[in-house]
Amino acid sequence: MGNGSSINNPPVDLTVTRIKFLREPTSRAWLDQALAHLDIILLDHSHCERKAAGVALNLMFRYPSNVKLVRQLTAIAQEELQHFEQVNQQLQLRGIPLGPLAAPPYGAALNRLIARQEPQRLLDTLLVCALIEARSHERLNLLAHHCPDPELGIFFGSLVASEARHYGVYWQLATESYPLVQVTERLTQLAQVESDILASLHPQPRIHS
Amino acid sequence: MGNGSSINNPPVDLTVTRIKFLREPTSRAWLDQALAHLDIILLDHSHCERKAAGVALNLMFRYPSNVKLVRQLTAIAQEELQHFEQVNQQLQLRGIPLGPLAAPPYGAALNRLIARQEPQRLLDTLLVCALIEARSHERLNLLAHHCPDPELGIFFGSLVASEARHYGVYWQLATESYPLVQVTERLTQLAQVESDILASLHPQPRIHS
Ligand SMILES: [Fe+2]
Ligand SMILES: [Fe+2]
Ligand SMILES: [Fe+2]
Ligand SMILES: [Fe+2]
Repeated sequence: MGNGSSINNPPVDLTVTRIKFLREPTSRAWLDQALAHLDIILLDHSHCERKAAGVALNLMFRYPSNVKLVRQLTAIAQEELQHFEQVNQQLQLRGIPLGPLAAPPYGAALNRLIARQEPQRLLDTLLVCALIEARSHERLNLLAHHCPDPELGIFFGSLVASEARHYGVYWQLATESYPLVQVTERLTQLAQVESDILASLHPQPRIHS
Repeated sequence: MGNGSSINNPPVDLTVTRIKFLREPTSRAWLDQALAHLDIILLDHSHCERKAAGVALNLMFRYPSNVKLVRQLTAIAQEELQHFEQVNQQLQLRGIPLGPLAAPPYGAALNRLIARQEPQRLLDTLLVCALIEARSHERLNLLAHHCPDPELGIFFGSLVASEARHYGVYWQLATESYPLVQVTERLTQLAQVESDILASLHPQPRIHS
């Protein structure tokens, strides 16, 4: 896998992948950092998929009576595990060993925004999950378009539609349990913080640096 | 779903399903309790499948560099989620609502046996998982053979082979990282405690009561 420096020069139209759900699009700085460290990004991507499966599973543990949530999150957890498996295959193909990786502050910072008390807790959790999925979707799409390794670009592209579906599911679960005006207002607040967190690039290259 | 009382009278040959991995076979008392409360057993079974997926996922979190473990447990987590989905379909067919259920002491009692320090911790964890899977396999097989609802019996039977494969995987992972004599000795100890825990029937009907 190249370090991508040869393709860092041409200007990149980041607005192609602009997601309305997110307050601010990903910066060019993140894309440059990611393309220069694709091995680490791919390993972090593996961790992200496993964590995404864990988050869906934990939500089912917490709301075992919510039939619709349980059904939809079972499907998401299954897909995330499939993605996890696929990313691990890409790692193996490239001789990148599996291993631990320090998480960027992104996830913990978002989790601190979640209310401790119901009914706000479920709403916040669903919207934070939706934002993480939307950002993953946006960034995998950027990698799919700008990755210097065509095979890897195709691989990232193959996951883009799933992650879009996932943020749609979390959003829909929120609107089914809370008034639309409340969901929209809270999303506006959370989306602003999500973009603020990413405004300063984390020095370690990560999917959510 | 009947309460099964009409079929409690004929003697049941429990040795048909005897599993060498387990110290003692399941008692007739458990089978009678389960057949008399199939609705609760089915709901608890749903929780067991979701918990089994969670346990596999947590183990991957803890040993992210162990390629073989990660690969095998990804497959197990995927299968457990599929079982979870299938049990939930059976619940829905029977009009049994999803909901929380107090866990029997079984899981927590087994977890207390796991060493806090490596390398013993991984060995103990794998063997406790193997024992839980083996017991699930044995009891689902009993339900498959003795359930008064033929459709449900067929359903339980459809999961029996998977659970046998799962305890095989946990056992194999243990023998690949630890000397066989150590694994066998520790299994003998843990299997004795596992059977001791189940020797007194928990008053609430559960897969592991
Ligand atoms: Fe994913
Ligand atoms: Fe996702
Ligand atoms: Fe299972
Ligand atoms: Fe299993």
